[in-house]
Amino acid sequence: MTETLNLARARLLPQEPATRRVAMSLFEAVETLPIISPHGHVDAGWFAKDEPFEDAVTVFLWPDHYVLRMLYSQGVGLNTLGIAGGELPVELDRRTIWRRFASHYRLFRGTPSRLWLDHAFSTVFGLDVQLTLETADHYFDTINAALASPGFRPRALFERFGIEVIATTEGALDALDDHKAIRASGWNGRVITTFRPDDVVDPDREDFHDNLGVLAALTGEDVSRWEGYLAALRKRRAHFREAGGATATDHGHPSARTADLPPDAVQRLFTRLTNGRGEAGDAETFRAQMLTEMAVMAAEDGMTMQLHPGSWRNHNPWLMQAYGRDKGADIPQRVSFTDALKPLLDRVGNRADLTLILFTLDESNYARELAPLAGHYPCLRLGPAWWFHDSPEGMLRFRRQTTETAGFYNTVGFNDDTRAFFSIPARHDLARRMDCHYLAELVVTHRISKSEAQEVAVDLAYNLPKAAYKL
Amino acid sequence: MTETLNLARARLLPQEPATRRVAMSLFEAVETLPIISPHGHVDAGWFAKDEPFEDAVTVFLWPDHYVLRMLYSQGVGLNTLGIAGGELPVELDRRTIWRRFASHYRLFRGTPSRLWLDHAFSTVFGLDVQLTLETADHYFDTINAALASPGFRPRALFERFGIEVIATTEGALDALDDHKAIRASGWNGRVITTFRPDDVVDPDREDFHDNLGVLAALTGEDVSRWEGYLAALRKRRAHFREAGGATATDHGHPSARTADLPPDAVQRLFTRLTNGRGEAGDAETFRAQMLTEMAVMAAEDGMTMQLHPGSWRNHNPWLMQAYGRDKGADIPQRVSFTDALKPLLDRVGNRADLTLILFTLDESNYARELAPLAGHYPCLRLGPAWWFHDSPEGMLRFRRQTTETAGFYNTVGFNDDTRAFFSIPARHDLARRMDCHYLAELVVTHRISKSEAQEVAVDLAYNLPKAAYKL
Amino acid sequence: MTETLNLARARLLPQEPATRRVAMSLFEAVETLPIISPHGHVDAGWFAKDEPFEDAVTVFLWPDHYVLRMLYSQGVGLNTLGIAGGELPVELDRRTIWRRFASHYRLFRGTPSRLWLDHAFSTVFGLDVQLTLETADHYFDTINAALASPGFRPRALFERFGIEVIATTEGALDALDDHKAIRASGWNGRVITTFRPDDVVDPDREDFHDNLGVLAALTGEDVSRWEGYLAALRKRRAHFREAGGATATDHGHPSARTADLPPDAVQRLFTRLTNGRGEAGDAETFRAQMLTEMAVMAAEDGMTMQLHPGSWRNHNPWLMQAYGRDKGADIPQRVSFTDALKPLLDRVGNRADLTLILFTLDESNYARELAPLAGHYPCLRLGPAWWFHDSPEGMLRFRRQTTETAGFYNTVGFNDDTRAFFSIPARHDLARRMDCHYLAELVVTHRISKSEAQEVAVDLAYNLPKAAYKL
Repeated sequence: MTETLNLARARLLPQEPATRRVAMSLFEAVETLPIISPHGHVDAGWFAKDEPFEDAVTVFLWPDHYVLRMLYSQGVGLNTLGIAGGELPVELDRRTIWRRFASHYRLFRGTPSRLWLDHAFSTVFGLDVQLTLETADHYFDTINAALASPGFRPRALFERFGIEVIATTEGALDALDDHKAIRASGWNGRVITTFRPDDVVDPDREDFHDNLGVLAALTGEDVSRWEGYLAALRKRRAHFREAGGATATDHGHPSARTADLPPDAVQRLFTRLTNGRGEAGDAETFRAQMLTEMAVMAAEDGMTMQLHPGSWRNHNPWLMQAYGRDKGADIPQRVSFTDALKPLLDRVGNRADLTLILFTLDESNYARELAPLAGHYPCLRLGPAWWFHDSPEGMLRFRRQTTETAGFYNTVGFNDDTRAFFSIPARHDLARRMDCHYLAELVVTHRISKSEAQEVAVDLAYNLPKAAYKL
Repeated sequence: MTETLNLARARLLPQEPATRRVAMSLFEAVETLPIISPHGHVDAGWFAKDEPFEDAVTVFLWPDHYVLRMLYSQGVGLNTLGIAGGELPVELDRRTIWRRFASHYRLFRGTPSRLWLDHAFSTVFGLDVQLTLETADHYFDTINAALASPGFRPRALFERFGIEVIATTEGALDALDDHKAIRASGWNGRVITTFRPDDVVDPDREDFHDNLGVLAALTGEDVSRWEGYLAALRKRRAHFREAGGATATDHGHPSARTADLPPDAVQRLFTRLTNGRGEAGDAETFRAQMLTEMAVMAAEDGMTMQLHPGSWRNHNPWLMQAYGRDKGADIPQRVSFTDALKPLLDRVGNRADLTLILFTLDESNYARELAPLAGHYPCLRLGPAWWFHDSPEGMLRFRRQTTETAGFYNTVGFNDDTRAFFSIPARHDLARRMDCHYLAELVVTHRISKSEAQEVAVDLAYNLPKAAYKL
Repeated sequence: MTETLNLARARLLPQEPATRRVAMSLFEAVETLPIISPHGHVDAGWFAKDEPFEDAVTVFLWPDHYVLRMLYSQGVGLNTLGIAGGELPVELDRRTIWRRFASHYRLFRGTPSRLWLDHAFSTVFGLDVQLTLETADHYFDTINAALASPGFRPRALFERFGIEVIATTEGALDALDDHKAIRASGWNGRVITTFRPDDVVDPDREDFHDNLGVLAALTGEDVSRWEGYLAALRKRRAHFREAGGATATDHGHPSARTADLPPDAVQRLFTRLTNGRGEAGDAETFRAQMLTEMAVMAAEDGMTMQLHPGSWRNHNPWLMQAYGRDKGADIPQRVSFTDALKPLLDRVGNRADLTLILFTLDESNYARELAPLAGHYPCLRLGPAWWFHDSPEGMLRFRRQTTETAGFYNTVGFNDDTRAFFSIPARHDLARRMDCHYLAELVVTHRISKSEAQEVAVDLAYNLPKAAYKL
């Protein structure tokens, strides 16, 4: 039997009727606010070229590591989803791939992927039945037909989605050609870049030395010297601001460890690493030192700094070798902040003109370390519930565990953090609903007034991200 | 004043009336499904011999470490409960012991023990007043009279409880006589064993060398050689399958650490340990290596593997010396999985024909490590909320923290994990209620449809455990 | 627009109407019970001298590190709040300071500080509009006028607040003059001290050696010898009991680590440390040993022992240097108990005549370690949700994560733990409401009966703290 796809008006709001009414009232005032997307991974090239998206598979399956990981966990080989890897035969027929996805759709019950997908199916493509094996062809044909029409090109969707500004993320060596092309095109959509220097600050990367060579070529600095290396990074930061409109940097480290070594020690460390004579622990120490250096530069040039620690990237070596990165095999680990951030905070923690936004995959830090740190240090703010926690329950845990110590105003609203462009409205819709859900609980239990909650709801949806990212 | 004992029809379901109605509707469809008990600790001898249970004290107090630990924590000496130990006088009068338990029954307020006990008192023995010192004699006499009747013998209760299959747990050297006797008896209740090899893979045990001797005698293998030792374990696994109907193995390690050493290194390690020349860390490394070996064997012979890490067994040395094991002095510790399981996963993690079920006592891993791991690796599944978390709030935390990342289909339904036979229906009843509680919340907040929730409820109560344990 | 300040009768109780009614009924029976405040930091001198409090700023801002930390986190310099430090000019005008606080009052939305402050504003000072910049002067004038009147002196408020007993905390060398003066005054308010020996057991303190000198002078013992040092501590404990009415000790250590070294090893350790020849790790080992020694003394002299581990005190060195201690820069860290407490528990854990109350800032321990430990060892009890967790959501997490394993009777009711005297009724009101909130959930989901919940509510609010602290 085919079930209707019908997004309930009150979805995700509290169960208790009076609380739900308050939440709905709060939500109605933020529902149509423009989308501020200050941290994401969509392809700037889409907006530069404005070409049609290919089909349902390339839009909904391949770019979504949440979808791939769940299917893979239940024995669905990536090759059977059209992803080449290893020596297995690859399914080439897109309709077959889409049917395979549809036949496993029940796996997503209870996950945010399901909510995001259904939201896009319904609001973007007007689908009104649930995705099942029986409706798979209908979906495939409907989506593909729509994608071929002008209204579904990237720029048209950007405007339809109500995006005020969206940030992409580029490596430190990126030429930013797509961003330059967008600016040159005369289109007035605001697409900006974010400076992500992991490729030139992580000595454990195989391409580290090559990357330093490119860095030198791009900047004209002598990056074999510590001061030249720092100068080169400053130049790239400036280039990202000027050519790509960047207002922020992003740092994805294995841990939150920071360091602030004496100048001569850091020079020796840098020399060892660039000469290929790094010792045990040197790479970790260098990454730690570089977080502090980046914070110092951020205090100088005004860019907002983001730290996303704690993911073991590409945990599955067989999958990595066969299929490459970003197939869902990044697994979180325990991290700590109170000790790890201390060297950085000792250096710049009391500067109110610096904004360092912290994210975590280890929720045991929310109440224990992150909220107390952000509730004290002027430079710190808390990023939203991240990645696996970008979900209804994850967001409630975030608010319940951080608000009582850090308040709302040490948080920065929502990040969608996605390369799945069609899910962006769904993700912001979900985040706004959950914030209103939480605020309504505070109102009904008389912890804040209704008018205060309304003000906070708007701040979380719109004002705080604009302020934190200087947009 | 004596209070009525009256199991409310809607107990444990959500407070909000509409959500409660949905939950009740879901529960009604799973309430009477047969009990699948794939992991437990009841005595197979009960079903082999089918003799009457002794009395209220031996049924409800002595086998229940949850009950003993709570009483002990409040200064009730184990000797005063009839358990001999140390040099203290032992209470011998069973009625006095029962009264002592009854007089402390308020300690269990808010605990699952209270819910399990009341359920058994009411549904198994028809008691209709609360247990207090005043009603203690009435309880004692009612229970003992019932236990003497034929309808309360183990096999009759097995059938009355609606048990389709129950697994016991035996050490690797167990002769499985009780299981053989059950099979030979013609009774058609399905009681199967589980292969638990801790006694022959943990070099820290005092009886490790003696156990290897028995292992050699039982299998005819030369267990002084690494290959002979592995062959002996393969034979015992086969024996457990053939003589005891085992479909699963169980592994209770201090940590989740695994290893996958090169063959020559593991041979040297094994030789050191079996020759009594083990070095610091060798025992831990060996246990770690053996988890990987067991996973490889499981991929070969199709047995489902279970890992229960993180308990400091017999934390209280005085109690251990005086009263022995299993008196409630096992205390959890922090564990991690992302790093610990990597060697095993690198070896067999991508095999969809292997099922490795993970349990934890450290809930900080649910959302951080376990759900991401199970939501990626084909071999991994999540066991239910375990031990201290086998409780209403514990189960909600489990679902709330794992479903959004791993979904429902990477979990395996409920385990009762108990030696308290009379509590088994209560435990399954509680687990089904809490799953329906959680599912009803998803329905009322429009995260899944009612018909999907109904399907999931049946899967969690019946289909998933049968599939995961190949029953 | 000025909003009304109106404490809702049902504030903080559950949203669902039937559950709220049960909670309200439970609360009404505990609302006016006397306040037992067995652990706090108010100034005993207030009650000794009974002089008027100064003004709104000294009552509500300066003593409240929760308030200072939140303001500081948002860039409000402490000097602009009238706190001298560093080389920045200090705001001297109290009305200006108060206005600055009022203009940032929205930062406290969703925090317990807001609830405590509003409660005091309303119930103590009769204020009936919300604090904003517009109402700041009205607040300042109203509060200051009230503080000048006799009914707002410390002893009058003590009685008005319904305090049956309040404990302050003093260092081991304190002369207890204020406590002696209170006793000598004939006033019958019960103000008692608590013995906090951190200053004479922590070799990492700069004043450690000087403190030992004072200890020797006060006790006449030869504290250069281990046995003399222990004897001196026993004398100070006795003095605190006799001169200050102490029934408890308090221990604020970086970790929960304990030790129980052989006598000769501890003697050598003590000698090294007192001779200034301490080695790496010695200070930590000594603090660990001293926790065990203190537990042994507590088992001898009957004082209740409290352990508050896991805070990195004065994490912000610049702030510490400029402004001193207790400005909100204490940040929690991960701690563990199962391993850390074992040496102490091996020594005295089975003694039911000892009470050791454990607190944590690392909530991952609630269900994993603390509840299992307290649910087994006769000497252990769990302190309430502490510090950053002394909040509505924090208290719910505490009960939800500890009750199912440790029950209610291994907990000790509420501690206000504050130096903000005017917030004490608010804090107890909040704690009683949250306990009734939790209990009502248990009642409505049929986990305990209404009459049981009523009994537990009274126990948590009154009987358990009196018993645990022997008051």
